[in-house]
Amino acid sequence: MNIKEIKNPKFLKDMNNKELEELSKDIREFLIESVSHTGGHLSSNLGIVELTICLHKVFDSPKDKIVFDVSHQSYIHKILTGRASKFNTLRQRNGLSGFQKRSESVHDAYEAGHSSTSLSAALGLAIGRDMNKEDNHVIAVIGDGSISNGLCYEALNQIGSTKTKLIIILNDNNMSISKNVGALHNHLDKIRNGHYKKLKTKTKTVLSKIPGIGLFLSNALGILKDSIKKIYNKNGFIFEELGIDYYGPIHGHDFKELEEYLNIAKKSESPVLIHVITEKGKGYVFAENDTTGSWHGVSPFDKTTGLPLETNDLTSWSEIVSDSLIRLMNKDIVVITPAMETGSKLTKLKAMFPNNFIDVGIAEEHALVLANGLSLENKIPFVSIYSSFLQRGYDEILHDIARMNTHVIIGIDRCGIVGRDGETHQGVFDVTFLLPIPNLIIACPKDSIECTNMIKTAIDTSSPFCIRYSRASLEYKKAEITEIPIGSWEQITEGNDGTLITYGDFVNESIEIIEKLKKDGIKIELVNARFLKPIDEKYFKEIIKKDKPIFVYEESMKTGSLGSYLGTLTNKNIITYGVEDLFVHQGSRKELLVGLELDKNTIYKKIKKEIGRSK
Amino acid sequence: MNIKEIKNPKFLKDMNNKELEELSKDIREFLIESVSHTGGHLSSNLGIVELTICLHKVFDSPKDKIVFDVSHQSYIHKILTGRASKFNTLRQRNGLSGFQKRSESVHDAYEAGHSSTSLSAALGLAIGRDMNKEDNHVIAVIGDGSISNGLCYEALNQIGSTKTKLIIILNDNNMSISKNVGALHNHLDKIRNGHYKKLKTKTKTVLSKIPGIGLFLSNALGILKDSIKKIYNKNGFIFEELGIDYYGPIHGHDFKELEEYLNIAKKSESPVLIHVITEKGKGYVFAENDTTGSWHGVSPFDKTTGLPLETNDLTSWSEIVSDSLIRLMNKDIVVITPAMETGSKLTKLKAMFPNNFIDVGIAEEHALVLANGLSLENKIPFVSIYSSFLQRGYDEILHDIARMNTHVIIGIDRCGIVGRDGETHQGVFDVTFLLPIPNLIIACPKDSIECTNMIKTAIDTSSPFCIRYSRASLEYKKAEITEIPIGSWEQITEGNDGTLITYGDFVNESIEIIEKLKKDGIKIELVNARFLKPIDEKYFKEIIKKDKPIFVYEESMKTGSLGSYLGTLTNKNIITYGVEDLFVHQGSRKELLVGLELDKNTIYKKIKKEIGRSK
Repeated sequence: MNIKEIKNPKFLKDMNNKELEELSKDIREFLIESVSHTGGHLSSNLGIVELTICLHKVFDSPKDKIVFDVSHQSYIHKILTGRASKFNTLRQRNGLSGFQKRSESVHDAYEAGHSSTSLSAALGLAIGRDMNKEDNHVIAVIGDGSISNGLCYEALNQIGSTKTKLIIILNDNNMSISKNVGALHNHLDKIRNGHYKKLKTKTKTVLSKIPGIGLFLSNALGILKDSIKKIYNKNGFIFEELGIDYYGPIHGHDFKELEEYLNIAKKSESPVLIHVITEKGKGYVFAENDTTGSWHGVSPFDKTTGLPLETNDLTSWSEIVSDSLIRLMNKDIVVITPAMETGSKLTKLKAMFPNNFIDVGIAEEHALVLANGLSLENKIPFVSIYSSFLQRGYDEILHDIARMNTHVIIGIDRCGIVGRDGETHQGVFDVTFLLPIPNLIIACPKDSIECTNMIKTAIDTSSPFCIRYSRASLEYKKAEITEIPIGSWEQITEGNDGTLITYGDFVNESIEIIEKLKKDGIKIELVNARFLKPIDEKYFKEIIKKDKPIFVYEESMKTGSLGSYLGTLTNKNIITYGVEDLFVHQGSRKELLVGLELDKNTIYKKIKKEIGRSK
Repeated sequence: MNIKEIKNPKFLKDMNNKELEELSKDIREFLIESVSHTGGHLSSNLGIVELTICLHKVFDSPKDKIVFDVSHQSYIHKILTGRASKFNTLRQRNGLSGFQKRSESVHDAYEAGHSSTSLSAALGLAIGRDMNKEDNHVIAVIGDGSISNGLCYEALNQIGSTKTKLIIILNDNNMSISKNVGALHNHLDKIRNGHYKKLKTKTKTVLSKIPGIGLFLSNALGILKDSIKKIYNKNGFIFEELGIDYYGPIHGHDFKELEEYLNIAKKSESPVLIHVITEKGKGYVFAENDTTGSWHGVSPFDKTTGLPLETNDLTSWSEIVSDSLIRLMNKDIVVITPAMETGSKLTKLKAMFPNNFIDVGIAEEHALVLANGLSLENKIPFVSIYSSFLQRGYDEILHDIARMNTHVIIGIDRCGIVGRDGETHQGVFDVTFLLPIPNLIIACPKDSIECTNMIKTAIDTSSPFCIRYSRASLEYKKAEITEIPIGSWEQITEGNDGTLITYGDFVNESIEIIEKLKKDGIKIELVNARFLKPIDEKYFKEIIKKDKPIFVYEESMKTGSLGSYLGTLTNKNIITYGVEDLFVHQGSRKELLVGLELDKNTIYKKIKKEIGRSK
């Protein structure tokens, strides 16, 4: 079948299982071919070819709404809803998104890029449907890794009590991005190793042989009756206890079984969860044999050899940070990752120091508070986390770590422009939300040597310490490790026509800019603002004194950036009265405003003085 | 016993149950007397008098570490650890904190003010202890409301799989701040209505009468053996499934039972949860009979009548917002609260419009994504949430609501200085973390009429819309409801000596400032910047044109505030190059930097031009 000619999923209704199997084969071939050219998420999509086909056969999208959690596994859905011909533009500028996108298709019911939002979103769609007196289905497709995040639990908790019609497909491939961890995972693991249907039969048979037990179970003790139901559904204990009907596990690559259970779900008038076992990477030998998650998201590759098309001698920031940690490791350091072992290149470190490494699963908030607890026992936690996922832990940085002023190091990976993952993954907000938080040290090294030294500095201090680094690759240079004075900036070039302040990868870009300007006869002082907080006040005062233009060049949202902070220190037009860089203690509102010099009397005096000065 | 003479909890070791009961009575009397003068959290503390005493009898603080979740229920703990004599300063400036505070006592093992951090923190303390080869106990005391938050689930998930020694006390009073909701609550409810011990006996007896069942259970089918264990512990299904030993429910006001089970926990080498049923407000008739949570946090009151000591004719912002919503209610509006029905004065609204009201429990993240889902079904969700708790939903505002640009209204309660709850509750960060997020409208009305009009405006637009209001009270004036042009500022007074830009409660404060300055011969233009985003660009340009001092007066952190944003628009000394107010799409890093005008070529050209201009 010519995959590119698919306009919408209606044609699936009339296909028999043999034809569907043929289609699956064609789709897999198309997918491998296409992604080998563009790069993208491969394994997770190969794993749900049959499931996605069957969803579109049983349900009627767009009337019925399919919400893919994270949605990097929505490629098959995109193909079946008429977007195959655009796959050559996947993840390219102005091309097809790697995620569900409402502007792309009416079949995209929601949008995500971060994990574990699908259940809450689906419940919103379901309650809204009920209020609108519509009768469409809402189906959330979620992986076993994503469901371990707290947000899902909050949603499950309400779904179970709301009792509205809602279908959850638990796509269980026993591997999220990194290897799954945690108790829920172990629970699912136990289920996998048994087999639901077999168990169901066995239990029934054995129980019927015990005299009187039928009566006992149905009448004698209500509570035991409830419990025995749990034995039938042994595997769904948790979901059933929360009030959600559980079916499974079922075979995720068997059309007969998939269709049977999706139809059971379709008939349900209350929340139901179908537990589907799938094989990540199915149909492509390299992806099938992958145990480290390296076929999760891939760059363009050679289909035959599985090798990446482009290689270079550069090293990623993640690798430099990981290797620096290995060089600096001591018995007190605990490296914590929320399911990003592979992405943040921590596999080698984990193997070398298994007792100093914790993968908490997709649980950013927990990772940070856990780290905070560890720091109170004089451990030195290093939480490795992507900038865009750190957004999930904003309150924990503020309320727990910064407010208690503990020695937690946060390694912020993927800062700045990340590229092909698009809006949901850009690391352009962390500077803006971290800068206003008191007590934090925020650093951004310019190269590998400074990076190692910065980690050394963070280990040797006792403050909460954020180290930012981007998704770029660079030359890995090593040197003897030394500390960097906290808050110190570095002059890279001298110049009297103006000053360019920048940090991170932009320092190197700026060296080229400065050199070009030099050829034009313009001499600019280049400053590596390796500490965004605290800033180098002494040096900055010298810069201001020169009374020449100051340029701040940042890979960050402009509002709330370092530049806007430096602006508040120098602006002669605008004087802002607000809360200075401290946590506001308890007291009456009136007392506190006086203490903060924000009461009306103080402001009156300040304005009067300023006006006097300006007149 | 003279409560104020207690220096540390050692004296408890030798007391018998009768003496402990006497002590409980004395502590309750002291507590009611003391809080009637200072105000504070009453009900939750009255509910755990016996539990806290017994914890300190069985365990050895500070060696053993007791982490109170939220920690507003740590008053008895404070009394037993020698702080009773300072209770007259409770929640006063420089006085005793209403929460656990490490700087106050070595017995305060952690600090919190936001809910649901205790399990993660306790696990950190426990793993740290193991690494240090110590053998102390770590005990987390957490309420049935708090445990419904996702962060707890993330922690339970790891606790169950880590298997380290850790004690969780589930303090179940069947009421968090507002009435509990959700499936987990229903589950706990079922447990309460049975009774564990009775069940345990019954089950044993009945089972032993069925021939052969003993053998069957222990040998025949491992999976059923597991399950029957769950029947003994019927009530702990969820915890047991996660790998945590469950005991309970036990009587939280019975010293004998408490001591027995705390000792069981003490002997355990793996994670254990003790489910304790307590009565919130126990020992004080008004608090005992409270069904709405109004005795949760109280102002100073008359001990005999239970009536507040100070009353006035002012109305809280929460009430004004709630009443405005009642006036504006239509079939599509859905008011969502994360367990703040009472705090945000939504009880009347809930009673009038039960089908337009959802309490999701302590689940801020879920509240926001649920709202986003509802908005896609053309509902108009209004999420009512405290500023400091909104910090938990930062990623959901950014990744879900703002990025998808949906019509979700966020009513941000308790903005600015909140007073006696201190550091953890101040609403001084929301402006800083919301301003850099594209697509958001951020408004802050100055009075009740503007507030109602602002909500009307938010309902009639289609953008994500944040409305901020403080904890202050004010005169509730009503008028005909009209819309406010989005982004429009309001001139309050004219003046040519300078401009004062402010918003919210500070507008009224500023009117007084302006009048005082007028008497000094200084005429200041006062501007109500009721929209923080988008700003009134036309008006602001006029203000700049005047070339007079501009003052921005804000109840917000200064870094990242409106003033710092306005500074970036006017600063002549510092020019910042960063990402403008938009979400950055997909593409290669290089392409994107060019598109954002942040590539080295463009920056080179821009700097060259600026230098040319300045020379």
